[in-house]
Amino acid sequence: LEKAMKGRQPTDLMLRCTILDADGNVKTISGQFRRADLCSEHRLNPRDLRKIDSRIPNLVPTILVRKEVILVNILHIRALVKADTVVLFDTYGSADSRLHSVFLYHLEHNLKTKSPGLPYEFRALDSILLSVLSALEAEMVFIRNLIGGLLAELEDDIDHDRFKRLLHYSRRLASFQNRAKLVQEALEEVLEQDEDLAAMYLTDKKNGIQRRLSDHEDLEVLLESFSKQVEEIVNEAENIQSNVQSTQEIVELVLDSNRNELLALDLKISIWTMGIGMGTLVAGLFGMNLKSTLEENEYAFGILSIASLLIACLFSWNGLRRLAKIRKVGLGSKNRKVSEQFLLREYLRSKGGEGW
Amino acid sequence: LEKAMKGRQPTDLMLRCTILDADGNVKTISGQFRRADLCSEHRLNPRDLRKIDSRIPNLVPTILVRKEVILVNILHIRALVKADTVVLFDTYGSADSRLHSVFLYHLEHNLKTKSPGLPYEFRALDSILLSVLSALEAEMVFIRNLIGGLLAELEDDIDHDRFKRLLHYSRRLASFQNRAKLVQEALEEVLEQDEDLAAMYLTDKKNGIQRRLSDHEDLEVLLESFSKQVEEIVNEAENIQSNVQSTQEIVELVLDSNRNELLALDLKISIWTMGIGMGTLVAGLFGMNLKSTLEENEYAFGILSIASLLIACLFSWNGLRRLAKIRKVGLGSKNRKVSEQFLLREYLRSKGGEGW
Amino acid sequence: LEKAMKGRQPTDLMLRCTILDADGNVKTISGQFRRADLCSEHRLNPRDLRKIDSRIPNLVPTILVRKEVILVNILHIRALVKADTVVLFDTYGSADSRLHSVFLYHLEHNLKTKSPGLPYEFRALDSILLSVLSALEAEMVFIRNLIGGLLAELEDDIDHDRFKRLLHYSRRLASFQNRAKLVQEALEEVLEQDEDLAAMYLTDKKNGIQRRLSDHEDLEVLLESFSKQVEEIVNEAENIQSNVQSTQEIVELVLDSNRNELLALDLKISIWTMGIGMGTLVAGLFGMNLKSTLEENEYAFGILSIASLLIACLFSWNGLRRLAKIRKVGLGSKNRKVSEQFLLREYLRSKGGEGW
Amino acid sequence: LEKAMKGRQPTDLMLRCTILDADGNVKTISGQFRRADLCSEHRLNPRDLRKIDSRIPNLVPTILVRKEVILVNILHIRALVKADTVVLFDTYGSADSRLHSVFLYHLEHNLKTKSPGLPYEFRALDSILLSVLSALEAEMVFIRNLIGGLLAELEDDIDHDRFKRLLHYSRRLASFQNRAKLVQEALEEVLEQDEDLAAMYLTDKKNGIQRRLSDHEDLEVLLESFSKQVEEIVNEAENIQSNVQSTQEIVELVLDSNRNELLALDLKISIWTMGIGMGTLVAGLFGMNLKSTLEENEYAFGILSIASLLIACLFSWNGLRRLAKIRKVGLGSKNRKVSEQFLLREYLRSKGGEGW
Amino acid sequence: LEKAMKGRQPTDLMLRCTILDADGNVKTISGQFRRADLCSEHRLNPRDLRKIDSRIPNLVPTILVRKEVILVNILHIRALVKADTVVLFDTYGSADSRLHSVFLYHLEHNLKTKSPGLPYEFRALDSILLSVLSALEAEMVFIRNLIGGLLAELEDDIDHDRFKRLLHYSRRLASFQNRAKLVQEALEEVLEQDEDLAAMYLTDKKNGIQRRLSDHEDLEVLLESFSKQVEEIVNEAENIQSNVQSTQEIVELVLDSNRNELLALDLKISIWTMGIGMGTLVAGLFGMNLKSTLEENEYAFGILSIASLLIACLFSWNGLRRLAKIRKVGLGSKNRKVSEQFLLREYLRSKGGEGW
Repeated sequence: LEKAMKGRQPTDLMLRCTILDADGNVKTISGQFRRADLCSEHRLNPRDLRKIDSRIPNLVPTILVRKEVILVNILHIRALVKADTVVLFDTYGSADSRLHSVFLYHLEHNLKTKSPGLPYEFRALDSILLSVLSALEAEMVFIRNLIGGLLAELEDDIDHDRFKRLLHYSRRLASFQNRAKLVQEALEEVLEQDEDLAAMYLTDKKNGIQRRLSDHEDLEVLLESFSKQVEEIVNEAENIQSNVQSTQEIVELVLDSNRNELLALDLKISIWTMGIGMGTLVAGLFGMNLKSTLEENEYAFGILSIASLLIACLFSWNGLRRLAKIRKVGLGSKNRKVSEQFLLREYLRSKGGEGW
Repeated sequence: LEKAMKGRQPTDLMLRCTILDADGNVKTISGQFRRADLCSEHRLNPRDLRKIDSRIPNLVPTILVRKEVILVNILHIRALVKADTVVLFDTYGSADSRLHSVFLYHLEHNLKTKSPGLPYEFRALDSILLSVLSALEAEMVFIRNLIGGLLAELEDDIDHDRFKRLLHYSRRLASFQNRAKLVQEALEEVLEQDEDLAAMYLTDKKNGIQRRLSDHEDLEVLLESFSKQVEEIVNEAENIQSNVQSTQEIVELVLDSNRNELLALDLKISIWTMGIGMGTLVAGLFGMNLKSTLEENEYAFGILSIASLLIACLFSWNGLRRLAKIRKVGLGSKNRKVSEQFLLREYLRSKGGEGW
Repeated sequence: LEKAMKGRQPTDLMLRCTILDADGNVKTISGQFRRADLCSEHRLNPRDLRKIDSRIPNLVPTILVRKEVILVNILHIRALVKADTVVLFDTYGSADSRLHSVFLYHLEHNLKTKSPGLPYEFRALDSILLSVLSALEAEMVFIRNLIGGLLAELEDDIDHDRFKRLLHYSRRLASFQNRAKLVQEALEEVLEQDEDLAAMYLTDKKNGIQRRLSDHEDLEVLLESFSKQVEEIVNEAENIQSNVQSTQEIVELVLDSNRNELLALDLKISIWTMGIGMGTLVAGLFGMNLKSTLEENEYAFGILSIASLLIACLFSWNGLRRLAKIRKVGLGSKNRKVSEQFLLREYLRSKGGEGW
Repeated sequence: LEKAMKGRQPTDLMLRCTILDADGNVKTISGQFRRADLCSEHRLNPRDLRKIDSRIPNLVPTILVRKEVILVNILHIRALVKADTVVLFDTYGSADSRLHSVFLYHLEHNLKTKSPGLPYEFRALDSILLSVLSALEAEMVFIRNLIGGLLAELEDDIDHDRFKRLLHYSRRLASFQNRAKLVQEALEEVLEQDEDLAAMYLTDKKNGIQRRLSDHEDLEVLLESFSKQVEEIVNEAENIQSNVQSTQEIVELVLDSNRNELLALDLKISIWTMGIGMGTLVAGLFGMNLKSTLEENEYAFGILSIASLLIACLFSWNGLRRLAKIRKVGLGSKNRKVSEQFLLREYLRSKGGEGW
Repeated sequence: LEKAMKGRQPTDLMLRCTILDADGNVKTISGQFRRADLCSEHRLNPRDLRKIDSRIPNLVPTILVRKEVILVNILHIRALVKADTVVLFDTYGSADSRLHSVFLYHLEHNLKTKSPGLPYEFRALDSILLSVLSALEAEMVFIRNLIGGLLAELEDDIDHDRFKRLLHYSRRLASFQNRAKLVQEALEEVLEQDEDLAAMYLTDKKNGIQRRLSDHEDLEVLLESFSKQVEEIVNEAENIQSNVQSTQEIVELVLDSNRNELLALDLKISIWTMGIGMGTLVAGLFGMNLKSTLEENEYAFGILSIASLLIACLFSWNGLRRLAKIRKVGLGSKNRKVSEQFLLREYLRSKGGEGW
């Protein structure tokens, strides 16, 4: 724990990051910077930078608004957005370099287009959120296909191995659902706080333009649009989830019902076995080395053979009849008509009892 | 993913749409328009139009209020309502052309009746919401009938195939429930925001009539009425849902209980089989080619036959008695009286222990 | 669907209703009125009256406050309360005429007592809510008795038919719970909106007395009192519901445990059958028409009979011993002591590992 | 119902109550008072007094603040607190007279200590809430011990009777949980309303001291402290509840798994029985009174005996091998390595498909 | 209960505590102080000190802000923070002295660093919260490893003992989850109340510096940071929880499916046994000491032996065919195509019926 403690104190660790300048050009790629330098340069509290620190895996995404900086830490992206610079921190273990390079390309492109529309920092945010959204969408489509395929397989045959795969997929779905929800919550948390929204107009702040606290429609529309799309993804994940849930429930019922059928067949077999055993007992009795006085009877063999077979059938038939009586299962009570009249009478009486 | 990215950038794609003019006459049917043109004509942000873009299936319905336009995207309807025009976008894959033509007919009719009541844009909204409501109602009635019929069938007999149909129906119900809830949320979201409600008086805005922010009773009553009716549908869907749930639970109990009955019968059969086997063993012993000194006894056959049958019965009877003891299952503990006294004593002591 | 559409447009349909005048006397009983007339007479929007229209069954209860009218639609009561008139709409299919006549009697009585306490419209509301409350209470008591009786029966014996009845009762309970909750929500919705509460002082409005928005304590106390009582009913229904739930869970466990006992007995029987079969095999071997060289041995019969019975017992005893080992089921791990020490050590090590 | 109606109208029923005066001395013990007198004396609405009326069991606890009176109705205590009097209503059926007398003793003591701390009415409230808290705590400890003991017993052996007791205990726990939650809600409801809190300073009101609406820190600290303690109790009850829940789930799994073991042993027995049956068949064939040409063979008996035993073993061994294959159950798919590579490839392809 | 009552009154009990002075030096270690002295010295209400009283185990953590003191009672730490003193109360039974000493060391260090950053009381809070966070993290990692290991074991083999361990672990997880949530709630409760936050600037209060109510950014950032980290832990615990849940569900399905396989094998065995029994019956019939006229037939033995074996096979084959029919279980209805067309037709008709 001492280590953990130390790990929390500001140390002079190096962070690898990529920096884009005000024109959208990449200034440094994976350059190493000292944490303390970053803090002082961007006027950040070391505590804030710890969030972005790429070595600690963070589940809960955050969008922090500081004096001159927006700190974004969502899924695979950890970035620091200023009015004229974007610093992207490398996340260790993010093998998915393709995703990253596409993102970088799009970000560069987006920052370069100096359309009169959005200020620099919002264009950066737009690219970041778009990358997050794409990653979520891709994963959602992937999981949906996985689970959809498995559920379709279950239509054909229910077996062990599919349950195990279902387990792995639904764990995965749960973790995805969790992540997507947290992203949505992070977006909504920002949207709910007028001060944060106003504080995100970094360019205006830098240029000394005063804004009213409630004047942030552009940003709100931008964030709301992403929030809606993430909500759609969360919603779809919940749909899949409820689908899996109801499939599990029905599979259990099907297995249960199948078991009853197996048992019923087993019973039939047992009944026949018992009948046959009865016949064997009769045959065995006459197989005893004792005098049965029928030894010399000509027809005794035929009669007793048929008799023992008949006894076998009789016992079996008796058993099967009982089975048939049990097998007939329905939810309707046999004496429902009666019971409903009873209900009505009871109801009327209960009201009569209250005497209103 | 590059494609997805591009798909998000404003492209010059064509949209098919039907346009109604200020008198409620259809000006264009399924005409093709360029996205960019639509944006500039109606002073829309391309981002907004993307929502309405009919090629992307949208789960989450939205009612967006912009400067001169109300954008509606609920279920099968994607429309753009202005103070003197209604633009209906064709939804691909909406095979349900009958629903659409009835809607169009009603909309035309509604827009033409220039009663002094509601302004143009609210009459359009009224038609749109009525069509949405009808679609929801029709589907709800349909699903209720499907599930009601299935549950009634389950009253008669519980079997495999019905579970499978139950699965399909309850998936369908879940998806319907989800859609209906989202429609309700969309309506309530608009109702909660006074600015949006005020901004929806497009005709007044166009005519330059100033309105107070809180003065929007007509619209509120209109939307609230639809919201209440959608709530009723959602509520009914939840009722069906809980009905399915409790049926599933009871079916499981019935299957369990039935299984126990099958097992009990099986046991009876097994017991009889064992008894018969015991008899056979005795018979077999005397069937051995060995000297039993009874070979010549006159009554030995009769006595031993009866004896072995008796042994069979004895063993069986013993088994059946044990079975009967297990079969008797109730929730009441036998020694309840005692245990309740115990509870009371314990309780008093515990209080005494606290010594208050 | 065209019909549905038409059904929604103002038609000249007749409504049957009973009217009470300012002195509480019944002016008209089940008189027929045209919808349009009612609307114009009471200055109502046709949309509002549609709610009260008795032919459409409404689940969600509503209390609407309009300019001169309070519209109440809760459970079996659909009424229109003015400052000097109460219009009660007949609900089709409300066979429960007794409930209705008692309500009418109480309403008349309540309106006639011109005590200086509450104004006319609140006395009418009081009667209406009291009738609603009584209906809810009566149904709750009825359902509680039904379910209580059934659960008591389950104490004695768990069987098929009772599950089916449980299903019917718990469906009924769910629907009741839903209705009660909706009534409570309707009451609370009114209570939460100061404007609505203020607007309900119809007599004062009629007499031109100005009231402050927050001055509505009488009405608040009246509604709150009913709301609390409905809450109590909802709470009790939830109690019953959770009772049913936990009973179902335990019944499942009891059935499971009973099944294991049945299986264990079955196993014992199987084991004995196997043992007996072994004995029979030995006997059968010596029953073969082959030379075993023991044919003439005097003691062979006795010895082999006993031997085969012993073999039967040996095999059975062996099987039973294995069974006993499996049967002993408890939640406690045998090597708990050990494992807990393990846990502790592990825990300490893990903390040591963090090195704090 | 007429009765119920009447029961609600102010009648001249007598209430038994104990009265303490301003010095904390008991003035009257279980004196009888007419309802109407109490109402007029304490300036109460009859509707309010109905809540306290001890003959109707009330689930939902309430703390009502009226002009000169605080009405408290929580669990076993129904009291009316004024600036210089406390009226305790006797609750019928409250056999727990010991609890009551201790409460009375503490209340007297608390009222007599005229420390400069809290005013009269808050000292009364303090005693009342303390008694409520003690009752809740005592019951919680009692239920915790009951359930803890039962769960400990389940560690040893899982059987019928314990499930039944579990059912009774968990019903009891649910009802306790419900009551505790309602007490907490009642406390929080008061804490949330500044007007109510301010209105509870009865002594200041009587002495004509004006207080600001927000100036009620003493009372807030007092109520908050009790609220926290009740929260702790609710929290503990939820812990027990979740403990019971997870135990039930695991018990079901253990029973299921035990059943599979029983079935596996049953299968083994069946397999042996089949093998033995096969041997018996062979023996039986040679026991037929037919010519097998082996009758005189010296070694035939030995050979065939051994052969039939071998056949028995062969058949059994074959069956057991199949069983062993089925018995091995784990959650891991055998071809997991493969499937995970498949997953990865699929994932990459899906992302490639989106082409980002 | 009298005892409990007394336990609540201020008694002259001694509390053991460690005191740090304004320079961060330990003044007293485990010194004994009278409760009353502490109250008067720090101007505390005895009611407040009761919370900190270390002999009563407290589940719900609290951060109370009083005039000159912040009272902290979270997990293993019970402290009293003033502008120039920190009093740490010893918790009895906290065997974990290592955790405590590391905490003390860190606290001392943190208080000594008189950086211009945070005031004395916040540095103390920082150390306290850091210790709490470390404890939570350590336990979370420990539980995650325990459960992760167990779930991995379940991949290999599902058995009794593992369920029992799962029960113990998931109880532990639930209790941990509960504690972590309560810590988060305590932090958020403080964060939500501006007055409390402002009141926590003890140093400024002492120095008589006036602060605006909303001016507490430093503290907010500090607490928010810890709150976020606790949220992350809670989130992870929920992930583990849902993992356990879905594993349990799938294990149940796997056990169920395995049981069906066992039953199917059992059935096969039973079927073979029955067939063999049939053969034995035939053999037994010919073993009867009766005249079958075939006694001298040369081929009778061979023919009948084969015949009885054939009969055995025939009966078995018949049984196995039936079994195979039952065994094939899938979720897809065989007549789905048909039923879907039916659905569509039904749907269209239902819409036609509404006639829109």
